[in-house]
Amino acid sequence: MGQNLALNIADKGFPISVYNRTTSKVDETLDRARNEGNLPLAGHYTPKDFVLSLKRPRSVIILVKAGSPVDQTIAALSDYMEPGDTIIDGGNEWYENTERRLHEVSQKGILYLGMGVSGGEEGARNGPSLMPGGSYQAYLNIEEIVKKVAAQVEDGPCVTYIGEGGSGNFVKMVHNGIEYGDMQLISEAYDVLKNVGGLSNVELAEIFSEWNKGELESFLIEITADIFKVKDEHGEGELVDKILDKTGMKGTGKWTVQQAAELSVAAPTIAASLDCRYLSGLKEEREAAAEVLEAAGLKEEVGTVRSGIDKKRLIDDVRQALYASKICSYAQGMNLLRAKSVEKGWDLNFGELARIWKGGCIIRAVFLDRIKKAYQRNPNLASLVVDPDFAREMVQRQAAWRRVVGLAISAGISTPGMCASLSYFDTYRRARLPANLVQAQRDLFGAHTYERIDRPGAFHTEWTKLARKGDTHVAALN
Amino acid sequence: MGQNLALNIADKGFPISVYNRTTSKVDETLDRARNEGNLPLAGHYTPKDFVLSLKRPRSVIILVKAGSPVDQTIAALSDYMEPGDTIIDGGNEWYENTERRLHEVSQKGILYLGMGVSGGEEGARNGPSLMPGGSYQAYLNIEEIVKKVAAQVEDGPCVTYIGEGGSGNFVKMVHNGIEYGDMQLISEAYDVLKNVGGLSNVELAEIFSEWNKGELESFLIEITADIFKVKDEHGEGELVDKILDKTGMKGTGKWTVQQAAELSVAAPTIAASLDCRYLSGLKEEREAAAEVLEAAGLKEEVGTVRSGIDKKRLIDDVRQALYASKICSYAQGMNLLRAKSVEKGWDLNFGELARIWKGGCIIRAVFLDRIKKAYQRNPNLASLVVDPDFAREMVQRQAAWRRVVGLAISAGISTPGMCASLSYFDTYRRARLPANLVQAQRDLFGAHTYERIDRPGAFHTEWTKLARKGDTHVAALN
Repeated sequence: MGQNLALNIADKGFPISVYNRTTSKVDETLDRARNEGNLPLAGHYTPKDFVLSLKRPRSVIILVKAGSPVDQTIAALSDYMEPGDTIIDGGNEWYENTERRLHEVSQKGILYLGMGVSGGEEGARNGPSLMPGGSYQAYLNIEEIVKKVAAQVEDGPCVTYIGEGGSGNFVKMVHNGIEYGDMQLISEAYDVLKNVGGLSNVELAEIFSEWNKGELESFLIEITADIFKVKDEHGEGELVDKILDKTGMKGTGKWTVQQAAELSVAAPTIAASLDCRYLSGLKEEREAAAEVLEAAGLKEEVGTVRSGIDKKRLIDDVRQALYASKICSYAQGMNLLRAKSVEKGWDLNFGELARIWKGGCIIRAVFLDRIKKAYQRNPNLASLVVDPDFAREMVQRQAAWRRVVGLAISAGISTPGMCASLSYFDTYRRARLPANLVQAQRDLFGAHTYERIDRPGAFHTEWTKLARKGDTHVAALN
Repeated sequence: MGQNLALNIADKGFPISVYNRTTSKVDETLDRARNEGNLPLAGHYTPKDFVLSLKRPRSVIILVKAGSPVDQTIAALSDYMEPGDTIIDGGNEWYENTERRLHEVSQKGILYLGMGVSGGEEGARNGPSLMPGGSYQAYLNIEEIVKKVAAQVEDGPCVTYIGEGGSGNFVKMVHNGIEYGDMQLISEAYDVLKNVGGLSNVELAEIFSEWNKGELESFLIEITADIFKVKDEHGEGELVDKILDKTGMKGTGKWTVQQAAELSVAAPTIAASLDCRYLSGLKEEREAAAEVLEAAGLKEEVGTVRSGIDKKRLIDDVRQALYASKICSYAQGMNLLRAKSVEKGWDLNFGELARIWKGGCIIRAVFLDRIKKAYQRNPNLASLVVDPDFAREMVQRQAAWRRVVGLAISAGISTPGMCASLSYFDTYRRARLPANLVQAQRDLFGAHTYERIDRPGAFHTEWTKLARKGDTHVAALN
């Protein structure tokens, strides 16, 4: 990724020096720079030569594995750097590490940015989405460069100064959590269409291509259409069917779920996508469970459900369910960002975040423009689902959404992400929840007290005594 | 809780000294000891007098707020303690704090236990479930006492040595996570019966009493029946309807969810119960959301759904859904414990854990005996749902379970816990998941590679190129 980003920078006309501990990588980058248009790129083989080759104030971007490799790289470079120079970490780093390093290098007068970079290898070379957070002065030093290097959309380059401290890493982390959610929801749509709808890969490719012309238009829908088209060179049919159903993961999804819990923000769709990755990893356990449950008498209902299906309507319902589920997932991610922004005083601009995700990154989608506008209309929006436009869309899609999830449940096809989104929607939009019972239970066994709907104060009741006496007595505590 | 536990210990014939920084609390305890049968309890007003009043080797139980109050109390007491003495923390402490303290006091030769105590005030006085972990010698020092103080069930006292380090706190933490899940699932059963079934509180009290005679027999079902019976002294009807639907929470549920993510264990039912507590807290936001969505055209479907309901069948279905959902929640909790046990080398005995939860604690239930037996049959059980007995029960209940969740979804009543359990079940029991698509996506945009179902190796494919060429080529990486 570092190589591609360097070539991208050089391609935009900014002379750049590169360094890697492995000299062959430096040479490879130099070769590519020559071959891809004699780009202004110089290679260096020691940290010292590399740093001293730069004009002051220097700006150095590090792209190494998160964690201690970043510390080691900073140590190797900072010896030769001077006050006013900048270090930029472009990795998926835990935001608190960035805050620690920001403080550490500031002792030497060095500025620091933790910059989320999304878009994979291809994005790095041709225009990623960039999320720089930390020193504002450091951002100003590189602003001209990153604005040219980032993906360009109709309302500007996909980069903005995110905020202080580790905010750039945190925003990238939540971006990745949302990405996990999107991928999970798409895989559920695929599962329902394939297993309930009985669709072939050829049909799926067509449907996803079709969907990519409408409200779902996005990078992930587009590549999904492509995936269904690729044939297997080792046998009959399409390659997708031969891929083992075990998914890997990196730390950012896990961190997103842990931060949601830390901040008391419900993010069930993102959590469901993580859970599915864990469960997918238990392939042998799942195969064994399928056998045990079949032996215990479990019958697959998917055949029965499939036989009564109106395929065309199912496809349209799934599209709507996917879209509605997606809105809920983004609502969770944005609310997680808001909670952290409040905690840390980052003053995040949610409309801007949605805007810089419109291009370059994995979750890039036309629908992000609608999110941008929702936050422009109301920067204090409590949730995306109560933005008037999104609310209308949710209402229009809810019947189809309920049909798809209900169908999947009766067919025994799990749609954990869509279910989680729907439960989230149905919980968030209800003025009255059964939480009154939970509070009564907590008061009964733990004397936690409760509030009432009709008068102020904290109350405690001797529930068991009263229930068994058939008597009533409530003690007001204040 | 400390007061009640001290009285319980004295009540079992073990002379005990008590100390509290607030002298009136000491006097109150002395009064109670006199009134509750001249129990052998002595009060002390300084840490020194308190510690020196004990026979060596001393065993001191601390019950203060988790975190720094525990450190302060240890500091105040340990000055007067001697090598071979024991400190026992009975609070809901983060297990790593216990491991730190265990190490710290060991420098002075003091032994340490982190002991989960469940059962609330009433349990502490009459027999709690105790989960002591840490120094085995310390456990032996107090074994006679805790075995008498703990709740007694037919197969012994509800206490066992859990394991080394912070294992006692960790097990208590997961116990609390499971408790959150149970409470959430019960509140959903209530919600469906009340809002879809149209049941009154009087009917609900009857049903929960009835349920408490069968497979659901448990403390939480019993107290729920009681709660529905309590009348409101301030007005018409039952008190439960007047309680504000905002639930509080403590740290253990949050830690459970964060640890599940840390250990790559899916615990969606427990997570859903946390999410519902968070969302319940957003009362004003929920009220506003209900209005916005109504204005956007949302119509409540619950009336339509209710009109077609067979009440008797619904009640029976909900009972089965609750039971099946509960099994999945316990499966998640046990698997979380197993993952931690492996990580830390605690060698937890899951059958014993289920046994000591059979009495005293909030989740005490007849059904825990079945869990105990499942782990006795197979200590390496991959999941509760693949134990042959539980598997049969799941199969018997799945049709009812799917009906309840499906009904709730069409009625717009959220059952996030039941949904999460069902999704979990349907994901875990499937030999083939749509995770193949996720792997294809990851390989496409991140070159993460994938495995195949039909041959070994890691593969990478140039998806986009091939899809657009209509060509096929797969590069084997090894």
